Amino acid sequence: MKTEEKLNMTMLCDFYELTMGNGYFKNGYKDRITYFDVFFRRVPDGGGFAIAAGLEQLIDYIENLHFTDEDIAYLRGRNLFDEEFLAYLKDFKFTGDIYAVPEGTPMFPREPMLVVRAPAVEAQLIETFTLLTINHQSLIATKANRICRAAQGRTVLEFGSRRAHGYDAAIVGARAAYIGGCDGTACTISDQLYGVPAGGTMAHAWVQMFDSEYEAFKHYCEVYPNNATLLVDTYNTLKSGVPNAIRAFNEVLKPLGITKCGIRLDSGDMAYLSQQARKMLDEAGWTECKISVSNSLDEYLIRDLLMQDAKIDLFGVGERMITARSEPVFGGVYKLVAVEKDGEIVPKIKRSENVEKITVPHFKKLYRFYGRDTGKAIADYMAVYDETVDDSGDFTIFDPYATWKKKNVYNFEARELLVPIFLNGKRVYDCPPLKEVRAYCAQQMDTLWDEVKRFENPHSYYVDLSQKLWDIQHDLLEQTEE
Amino acid sequence: MKTEEKLNMTMLCDFYELTMGNGYFKNGYKDRITYFDVFFRRVPDGGGFAIAAGLEQLIDYIENLHFTDEDIAYLRGRNLFDEEFLAYLKDFKFTGDIYAVPEGTPMFPREPMLVVRAPAVEAQLIETFTLLTINHQSLIATKANRICRAAQGRTVLEFGSRRAHGYDAAIVGARAAYIGGCDGTACTISDQLYGVPAGGTMAHAWVQMFDSEYEAFKHYCEVYPNNATLLVDTYNTLKSGVPNAIRAFNEVLKPLGITKCGIRLDSGDMAYLSQQARKMLDEAGWTECKISVSNSLDEYLIRDLLMQDAKIDLFGVGERMITARSEPVFGGVYKLVAVEKDGEIVPKIKRSENVEKITVPHFKKLYRFYGRDTGKAIADYMAVYDETVDDSGDFTIFDPYATWKKKNVYNFEARELLVPIFLNGKRVYDCPPLKEVRAYCAQQMDTLWDEVKRFENPHSYYVDLSQKLWDIQHDLLEQTEE
Repeated sequence: MKTEEKLNMTMLCDFYELTMGNGYFKNGYKDRITYFDVFFRRVPDGGGFAIAAGLEQLIDYIENLHFTDEDIAYLRGRNLFDEEFLAYLKDFKFTGDIYAVPEGTPMFPREPMLVVRAPAVEAQLIETFTLLTINHQSLIATKANRICRAAQGRTVLEFGSRRAHGYDAAIVGARAAYIGGCDGTACTISDQLYGVPAGGTMAHAWVQMFDSEYEAFKHYCEVYPNNATLLVDTYNTLKSGVPNAIRAFNEVLKPLGITKCGIRLDSGDMAYLSQQARKMLDEAGWTECKISVSNSLDEYLIRDLLMQDAKIDLFGVGERMITARSEPVFGGVYKLVAVEKDGEIVPKIKRSENVEKITVPHFKKLYRFYGRDTGKAIADYMAVYDETVDDSGDFTIFDPYATWKKKNVYNFEARELLVPIFLNGKRVYDCPPLKEVRAYCAQQMDTLWDEVKRFENPHSYYVDLSQKLWDIQHDLLEQTEE
Repeated sequence: MKTEEKLNMTMLCDFYELTMGNGYFKNGYKDRITYFDVFFRRVPDGGGFAIAAGLEQLIDYIENLHFTDEDIAYLRGRNLFDEEFLAYLKDFKFTGDIYAVPEGTPMFPREPMLVVRAPAVEAQLIETFTLLTINHQSLIATKANRICRAAQGRTVLEFGSRRAHGYDAAIVGARAAYIGGCDGTACTISDQLYGVPAGGTMAHAWVQMFDSEYEAFKHYCEVYPNNATLLVDTYNTLKSGVPNAIRAFNEVLKPLGITKCGIRLDSGDMAYLSQQARKMLDEAGWTECKISVSNSLDEYLIRDLLMQDAKIDLFGVGERMITARSEPVFGGVYKLVAVEKDGEIVPKIKRSENVEKITVPHFKKLYRFYGRDTGKAIADYMAVYDETVDDSGDFTIFDPYATWKKKNVYNFEARELLVPIFLNGKRVYDCPPLKEVRAYCAQQMDTLWDEVKRFENPHSYYVDLSQKLWDIQHDLLEQTEE
């Protein structure tokens, strides 16, 4: 695997993190311990859940946090920052705690994906990058997961580098897509850096470079007899592309005893063309030839193609996955939920006209309840940090908005979702290999009921509050400001 | 300015660029000179034109192209590549020519933004990164340009880092937004790296950190008396936010003789709240206090707010600009248009069932005709590389699809848009400072008629072909494949 050349992203922060930092510093709040939650309010595309991703890059960022002399000089030049603050930044490092759900975990609105406990200046400074990496990779992992589910077990490859929003979007986008369920990518460097299997065959330029389509196919089969997937739509898919491919297979692969090969369709009516091509290939004896398609695909088009009985073995998905085109924003936010004052944790709330936007205050634990009989996830449960859940008997939970809606949970196991990543600035978590993250995500998908996984109007999964937490939230809401 | 730590992006290529490269190499096509055009077929959001951007990052990439020993070892491990090819990659560098339109140029569908003339393997290898940088930055510059035009001269700042698709999307996204017309960004590192002015004030956390909103405001004014923009919506904008801001201005700024300050609205009904806040501020004598707003804004919401006579001086635009949310894909493509054979340039075409998808073949020049009286752009004109346009008299152009539609052009100046960037692998172009790129873009905007700049149903600008080029295209279309 390629040694990653790491950029120092310390200065990738909203400028206000620095002006606030300087302000906290001057007001003696530098060491005030603060608690921030990262959570989202709704799932893109109206989905029932999101897939958490981006933690590994956050860890790299935190471990590499430091201001260079150049950074300090730039800040000094802005004439806004005190010399004492700049001197403090010289030795700046992260000294706090971070808790997070493992990458690949399905997550629901309003619950914390990540919790930061740190001195005010530190917690504020890491806001921008923390949101950026979690928002970006969770967006792509969630979209990829939808697309892969639509493909119903068929191979899905990520093909979108050329339409990604910059190189990082291409490289870690392919990583996130793999977590979400893709089988591989076209992006070479993502394989080198993260072990996302990279593959690919030919572009139209290959076909055009030779004197004829047949020549182009024949030469390709000669160079790559064991990986011959031929792009058949440069001129006319059924009149020239598929016949020329069969001719090349017959002349080059057959004498070698090779039966595995492929064709790729990149334009036209995929349902019709794939059925016709399948027939032609089968009649010519190339029953093991796989048919790939690629052309602005997403979960809806893939579902439609399969409903039309398209004969497709592999989907190459480009721009609509790597940009999450249908809804390219993952709205994770970073909200203050508590501060420490004289050793006490004081919960904080952000009121809002909009009921949905009211935050859940306090330093919290997050549990997921699994049925011991079904293995399925029943509900998520947020509690105050010092509460525990006794899952040896029955348990009653209630809807935090319609509190008269109660649910009795029994024969269940309560598992904590947030695990410590950093404690007192030291990393205490080893990221699992990416393959394992992907397998964990797939396994977690099996714990969700199909009703939660629907594309349209999914069942609203229960995300409830403990009585203690609910009471704290409501006490804070009752208190009027000044 | 920060010394940019440059990543080697050579391996950020679709894997097929490498398999094709190896194939060209084995077939003796390594040194065959090829010509590729980068162009797009439609403008996002149904706009009339796009703003070209991303060239500077392409230049960095090309100059830094090289395979490390690690890269070669990775490729060897894939068991697909010949040792001679791997040996060739060891000394690989770009030796060809690149022509491009300067960043900030308004561009129209089907015309080349960039032309590559290079040996097949080289031209193929750079496809992915070339498209990635041009697509990404042109997307954001184009979107930012729409948003800034909607703001009708008011300040627009880019606030989207936390929702960007990775760090590169945040950093060069802010750069592209600045080219398109934004006045600055919240992204600190974009200022350091590219000189995009970075600024910002406070988040809700600042307000929550203090014992009261008033305390939070007062302390902020004390720390930043010359940059006091206060976020007034944490509790209740009109009942507590604005009154507390006025109180803090009166108590801290007034004694210092400071009249410049600001408030920011981040939620609620921006039209109503801004009007009420303006009234309250004016009545309190803070007529120079600027009102900023930010909350999922885009060109449509800004236009609506201004139609409702909202009292807004500054728009902070986040996720909808940095992700180009309404249409997050810029569809630039990289198509073979010619190859050299025995010293002759042989034009190549990509046929398609879809007439719009047929490519314009050949090594081309691109002219823009400007009226000498109006200074306005009249039409763009593609010609074969060895043609010239005589703009001393009249000139007749015709629609390439409806050839009977002719237009007589007179009193015009023909300017070539594509300039040499690399010749024989050597850079021959110096990127202008970003401020100048932004100014050039603004000046170019003045050359477009308002009809072309409409958001809905813009006038279709003329992009015509020379008779010679049209004849070559049609001859190629008449030739049947095999």
